[in-house]
Amino acid sequence: MKGFAMLGLNKVGWIEKEKPAVGPMDALLRPLAISPCTSDVHTVYEGALGDRHNLILGHEGVGEVVEVGNLVKDFKPGDKVIIPAITPDWEAVESQNGFSQHSNGMLNGWKFSNAKDGVFADFIHVNEADGNIAILPPEITIEEGAMLSDMVPTGFHGADLAEVAFGETVLVIGIGPVGLMAVAGANHRGAARIIAVGSREICAKAAKGYGATDIISYKNGDIATQVKDLTKGKGVDKVIIAGGTVDTFEEAVNVVRPGGIVSNINYLGSGDYIKIPRVAWGLGMGHIRVVGGLMPGGRKNMEYLSNLMKYKKLDVNPLLTHRFKGFENIEKGLLLMKDKPKDLIKPVITI
Amino acid sequence: MKGFAMLGLNKVGWIEKEKPAVGPMDALLRPLAISPCTSDVHTVYEGALGDRHNLILGHEGVGEVVEVGNLVKDFKPGDKVIIPAITPDWEAVESQNGFSQHSNGMLNGWKFSNAKDGVFADFIHVNEADGNIAILPPEITIEEGAMLSDMVPTGFHGADLAEVAFGETVLVIGIGPVGLMAVAGANHRGAARIIAVGSREICAKAAKGYGATDIISYKNGDIATQVKDLTKGKGVDKVIIAGGTVDTFEEAVNVVRPGGIVSNINYLGSGDYIKIPRVAWGLGMGHIRVVGGLMPGGRKNMEYLSNLMKYKKLDVNPLLTHRFKGFENIEKGLLLMKDKPKDLIKPVITI
Amino acid sequence: MKGFAMLGLNKVGWIEKEKPAVGPMDALLRPLAISPCTSDVHTVYEGALGDRHNLILGHEGVGEVVEVGNLVKDFKPGDKVIIPAITPDWEAVESQNGFSQHSNGMLNGWKFSNAKDGVFADFIHVNEADGNIAILPPEITIEEGAMLSDMVPTGFHGADLAEVAFGETVLVIGIGPVGLMAVAGANHRGAARIIAVGSREICAKAAKGYGATDIISYKNGDIATQVKDLTKGKGVDKVIIAGGTVDTFEEAVNVVRPGGIVSNINYLGSGDYIKIPRVAWGLGMGHIRVVGGLMPGGRKNMEYLSNLMKYKKLDVNPLLTHRFKGFENIEKGLLLMKDKPKDLIKPVITI
Amino acid sequence: MKGFAMLGLNKVGWIEKEKPAVGPMDALLRPLAISPCTSDVHTVYEGALGDRHNLILGHEGVGEVVEVGNLVKDFKPGDKVIIPAITPDWEAVESQNGFSQHSNGMLNGWKFSNAKDGVFADFIHVNEADGNIAILPPEITIEEGAMLSDMVPTGFHGADLAEVAFGETVLVIGIGPVGLMAVAGANHRGAARIIAVGSREICAKAAKGYGATDIISYKNGDIATQVKDLTKGKGVDKVIIAGGTVDTFEEAVNVVRPGGIVSNINYLGSGDYIKIPRVAWGLGMGHIRVVGGLMPGGRKNMEYLSNLMKYKKLDVNPLLTHRFKGFENIEKGLLLMKDKPKDLIKPVITI
Repeated sequence: MKGFAMLGLNKVGWIEKEKPAVGPMDALLRPLAISPCTSDVHTVYEGALGDRHNLILGHEGVGEVVEVGNLVKDFKPGDKVIIPAITPDWEAVESQNGFSQHSNGMLNGWKFSNAKDGVFADFIHVNEADGNIAILPPEITIEEGAMLSDMVPTGFHGADLAEVAFGETVLVIGIGPVGLMAVAGANHRGAARIIAVGSREICAKAAKGYGATDIISYKNGDIATQVKDLTKGKGVDKVIIAGGTVDTFEEAVNVVRPGGIVSNINYLGSGDYIKIPRVAWGLGMGHIRVVGGLMPGGRKNMEYLSNLMKYKKLDVNPLLTHRFKGFENIEKGLLLMKDKPKDLIKPVITI
Repeated sequence: MKGFAMLGLNKVGWIEKEKPAVGPMDALLRPLAISPCTSDVHTVYEGALGDRHNLILGHEGVGEVVEVGNLVKDFKPGDKVIIPAITPDWEAVESQNGFSQHSNGMLNGWKFSNAKDGVFADFIHVNEADGNIAILPPEITIEEGAMLSDMVPTGFHGADLAEVAFGETVLVIGIGPVGLMAVAGANHRGAARIIAVGSREICAKAAKGYGATDIISYKNGDIATQVKDLTKGKGVDKVIIAGGTVDTFEEAVNVVRPGGIVSNINYLGSGDYIKIPRVAWGLGMGHIRVVGGLMPGGRKNMEYLSNLMKYKKLDVNPLLTHRFKGFENIEKGLLLMKDKPKDLIKPVITI
Repeated sequence: MKGFAMLGLNKVGWIEKEKPAVGPMDALLRPLAISPCTSDVHTVYEGALGDRHNLILGHEGVGEVVEVGNLVKDFKPGDKVIIPAITPDWEAVESQNGFSQHSNGMLNGWKFSNAKDGVFADFIHVNEADGNIAILPPEITIEEGAMLSDMVPTGFHGADLAEVAFGETVLVIGIGPVGLMAVAGANHRGAARIIAVGSREICAKAAKGYGATDIISYKNGDIATQVKDLTKGKGVDKVIIAGGTVDTFEEAVNVVRPGGIVSNINYLGSGDYIKIPRVAWGLGMGHIRVVGGLMPGGRKNMEYLSNLMKYKKLDVNPLLTHRFKGFENIEKGLLLMKDKPKDLIKPVITI
Repeated sequence: MKGFAMLGLNKVGWIEKEKPAVGPMDALLRPLAISPCTSDVHTVYEGALGDRHNLILGHEGVGEVVEVGNLVKDFKPGDKVIIPAITPDWEAVESQNGFSQHSNGMLNGWKFSNAKDGVFADFIHVNEADGNIAILPPEITIEEGAMLSDMVPTGFHGADLAEVAFGETVLVIGIGPVGLMAVAGANHRGAARIIAVGSREICAKAAKGYGATDIISYKNGDIATQVKDLTKGKGVDKVIIAGGTVDTFEEAVNVVRPGGIVSNINYLGSGDYIKIPRVAWGLGMGHIRVVGGLMPGGRKNMEYLSNLMKYKKLDVNPLLTHRFKGFENIEKGLLLMKDKPKDLIKPVITI
C-alpha cells in the first residue's frame, strides 16, 4: 500500500509498505477524509518524536471499514467510522484506572504515527476496533467527522480538565483549531466570560463564534497584565493552555484565582521545566491546580462528542478553512499547517 | 409596612407589619421587581407549609438596599441587588460541609416566606447580607434579575446534580419555568440530546430555544415508553425531574442507563413514598443514583449565574410572558401561577 | 470436566461438562481455593436468576493458570491468580464510561454462574484474561485470596459509593462477610464512628475488629430510633446497606443527614419497590443520595485491593471461620451459607 | 494582657498588649494548651512574613471560652474548645466556592500570628466563633487537642488533596509532625504501601506506627531513584510533600505515575519557581496533577477530625515528645522547634 510518510527529519514523501495484518480484535479501514495536524509538523520538522524513518503520518480522519478481525462484534465492512487519534488498550490497568491515554505506559494510547503507521495511507489499522472506532452519524459529513479525531476531543478535554463550571471566567491561551475547540468546550460547560488569547483575525472571529467574549493578543504585552486589567484585578477562575511554550504556565498561574485550575492541552516540545511562580502559587498553599493531559480516545468519547454535532450543538465548519479533494493534496495540507497562512485554521482532504 | 400575605389556607391579602429590625450582619431592601412562584401557590392553596397565618409571601426578586448593619462590608444603601430565594447561615457546619441549603437543619437555608416574611413587602430583611445578596450587573434588567432568585439557580442545580457531561442524552420532565431552566442548564453543561416532557405549546417552544431537541407529552402515553422509542431502547444518561409527583421517579428510573443519575428539583408536596422499581434499578446493583436538592443560595451562586446573563450566554426573557407595573398587581401574578393560562410561563412585577 | 451445579430450583449436584474453549484473549484456570457465597444460595434456593438448569455455581476463588489464548500477554500457565467475581468486557462503551460492571448491559460484567458456568469446576474460563485476573502476591494465602473475589471488593465498594470521608459517622446495616468488609472499607476511608447493625455474636466481634464502634441489633427495635438515640438525634453522615430487604432503605433515609448518602451493596432479590420516605427525604430537596451498585471487577481492582492485604493493612482471616480441604466439600460449604450457623462467617475450600 | 511575641527579625520576648475587643460574632478565649510550630520558627528566624514587630506568635492550641459576642449561639464561657490555625470568613464568596482558606484573598483564612495576634497570649480572639471553634470532646486531653489545630488537619489535607484511594502506593516526603499526620491521613484513606522519606530515627519509628511500610532517607541518594528501586520501576500513585524545598517537586514528578497527583502541604519559604520536569510530566500530557494547599480551618473540620481521636482511630500521643507545664516554657518550646534535637517531634505546653 501507499502512504505519505516522514522519511527522516524535515523530509516527507510517498512510500510503499505492506498492508497491515488484521488481528482478531482489529479493523482495517480505508480513509475517506483526513486532516493534517500541527503535531505532524512537530514530528517532521522539529523531531518531536526523534529522527523517525518511513513513518506514515496522520492521526485525524474518517474511514470506511474494509476488514475486521473475527472477534469484532460491532463493525463490518462498509461502515463509515470516526478514527480517534488515541486508540487505547482497554484491558490495561491504567485504562481501568481512568487513564486509558496511558494504557501500558505514559502516552501509549497514542499509536498512530507514533507507535505505528498513521492514517495518511491506503489502509489504516485500528487496534481493538470495538473499543476504538465509532459509527459516523449520517448527519455529520466526513470533513466534519475528521475534526472529531483530535481537534474536538482535545479542546473539550481542556475544558474538562479545568472543570469549568457555570458562570466562570475562563482564559484560553492559544486559538488555533485546538484552542478554538477549548473555547467551545469551556462554553459548553457553562463558562460565562471567556477571554481568548490570539493574534490572527480569522481565529479571533471564530473564537467569538464559539463563545469567547474578549480577545487579547500577546503582541499587546504580558497576558497576565491584560487579563488583570480586564477583570479589575480579580483574575480568572480557570486557564486552558492550548498554545505557547513551557513559559506560558507562569502567566497562567499569575492570573488564576486561589482554588483555580490551569489545564494544559498543548504538546510541550522543548524546554527543561515548566516553572510555577512560588509567590503567585500561594507559597505552595494556594490550591492552584496545574495539570495537563492527552485527550481521551476510544469509542465512547467519539460517540458522545459526535452527538454534539449530530444534534446541532456544535458546528466545526468554521474550522475548515481549506478543503481539498484527492489523496495527492496531503502534502499541501501539511505545508499549510507548517506555514500557517493568515486565512488558515485547518485543512481537510477528502479522498 | 405593607405586605401581601397568606392570611390562612386559601386566603391572601394585604397586611400591615412592623418594619423588620436590622442586625449587625443584615440588610434591609425595598423591592424593585418581584415574581410569584408555584411554591407560593403550594403554600397558600395546598398548605404545603401547614396552615400559616399572616405570612408575607414571595421569595423571588431584585431590590434596592435601604439600610445595612454595622458589620456589613460590601453593600450600602442604593445598591441594586439580586435576592436569592435561599439565604443560608454561612457559619453553620452544614454550610462548611457543602450543603448551605441545610444550614442548621434540613431546608433551613430557605427563610423567605417560610421561616420569616417573604419579599412581597415594602421592606425585605436579608440575613448575612455580605454572604447572601449580590450586585445586579447593569447589563441585566430588574425583571431579568428576578429570575436569578429561584428559576435559574433551581433549574441549573438540576443539571449540576445530574452531573450532565459532554454529549449526553438528558430527559427533563416538566417544562414550566424551572424545567425550562433545567433544559438550559443541561445545555450549558454540554448535553447533546435533550428530551423535554411537556404539553403546553408556549413552553415547548421556549424549551427548543433553550436547547431541547425533542418534545414529548405525557398525554401521548407513558414517558418511559416514548423515550425508549426515541432512543432505540437505550434510554438516557440522565433525568432531571422538574415536575410531576412522587410517581414520576418510577418512569425516570425506567429509562435511565446503568450508572445514570435521576436528579430532582421538584418540591414533592404529597405522597408517602418515592418508589424506585427494583428490577429497573438493577436489583439494587445498577448504579442508578437518585438524588434531589434545594437550590444553593447565597452570593457566590448569584454572582456566577448572573455572569451568564451579563455575558449574553443566557436570556431569560422568553420566560417573562407577563409583565406588570405596580405592587398592586401581585395578586394578579399569583393567580396566574395558580391558574396557568395557555400563554403563561412566568409573571414579573416591577414596583 | 466435573462441576458442582445448580440442577434446577432447590437442587444441586455434580455434573459433567466439556472443558471450555479458550479464545485468543482468554485464560483457563484450575481452582486452588473457592468459597461459596450467599448469592449462590439465592440462585439455587430462591431462584434469583430464574430456574436455571445445570449451571455450574461459584464466583469466588483463587486459581492456577493452565492455558492462555495467543493474545494474552501478562499471564502464563502456572501463575497463581485472583479471580474477580465480575469480569467485564473492557472495550465496551459502558466500561469506558466508568461502569465496567454494566459492560454491554446492566449487570453484564457478572458472568460466572450467571452468563456462563462458575468457578466450582475442574476448569474455569476467564474472558479477557489480561484485564480480568491478577497475580496473587506470595504474601497472601490462597484462602485469603479467595476473599478478594467478592467479599473485599463488594464491601469496600459500599464505602466508595458512600464517599466516606475523614471523621464521619457511618451506619452499616448487615454484618455478614460483605457487611464486615463494608465496615472495614468505611474504616479504611477514615470513618470515625461506625455503627454496625447485626445480631450474631461472632459477626459483632469481627465488626469491632474491623473498626465498628457501636453494635446494634434490629431485634432491639427500629434501627432508625436506635441510631437517633446513639447520635443525640443527629443521625449519620452515610449509610451502607449490606443486608435486609427493599424495606431497609426507609430506615436508612430516616437517619441520614441532609447531604448524606445511602449506598447499597445488597442484592435485592424480591419486592417491587424500594421506598424512599418523602418527608425524611426533604420533600425531594434534602440532597440525600440513594445509590447501589455491583462491585467493580477486573484486574486493577484486584491488584489494588490485594495490596491492602500484602502490606498488612487488612486481614481477612477473621472472616474465614470454616476451612475445608477437598473439592467434595463444596456442598457442605454451600449449605453452611444457606443455614448460617452461629459460628459461621464464611467457609473456604482448598482443592 | 501578656503575650509571647516576635519583636523583630530573630528576636522574641514577652510584651504587653490590650485585651482584644470582642465583636458580636467573636469569642475571647484563654489558652489551656498551646504548641509552637515550625511556621513560628519561619516567621521569626526566616522572616517568612516579613520583618514584623510585636506580633504575638502561635496558632495551635486548646482554650477556654471567657467571653462571647451577643450573636454567638453555640458557645459560652467555660467551654473547652479546639482553636483551628485557620479561621475563615464564612460569608466570603471564596468560602462559598469551597476555598474558605482563601476567604477574601489568598491565604487570608490564616489570621493568627499573621493578620492578627496569635495564641501565645493571655487572651485569644476568635472571629466568627460559631463557625470557627469546636467543643473539645471530653475523651481528648488538652495536649492531644492542640494537635488538632494544625498538625492533624494539615497532614490529613495532604492526603485529601492527593485523593488517596484504596490500595494505592503513596510517597510522603518529610516526616516531621505534619508529614507524620500525612502518613496517618494516607493510611486512613486506604493507602496500602506508604513510603516515607525521613532521616531521624524517632520520626521513622512514629511513621511506621502511623502506617508507613517503607522508610527511605534522602541521605542515601536521590529519592526518585530509591523509590523506583523499591517499586520495580513503577513509581507511586500519589506523592504528598510535607518537607523540602521548591526543588522537591522535581523528584516527586519523577516518580509519580501518569494520572497521579503530587500534593503539597509544605510552606515554601524561598525560591522563585517550583520546577516541573517537562519530560517526566509527559510533555504536558501525562495527567500528573500538581497542587498544594493550606489546611481547611473552621468548626466542621475540627469536629470531624476530633471524632477520629474520640473514637480511638487516631492517637497523636506519639507526636508529643516534649511536654511542659507553664506559660513561661513557650520560648523553650519554640527553640526546640528551631533546633530540632534528635528526640523531638513536637512540644506542647499546658498552662
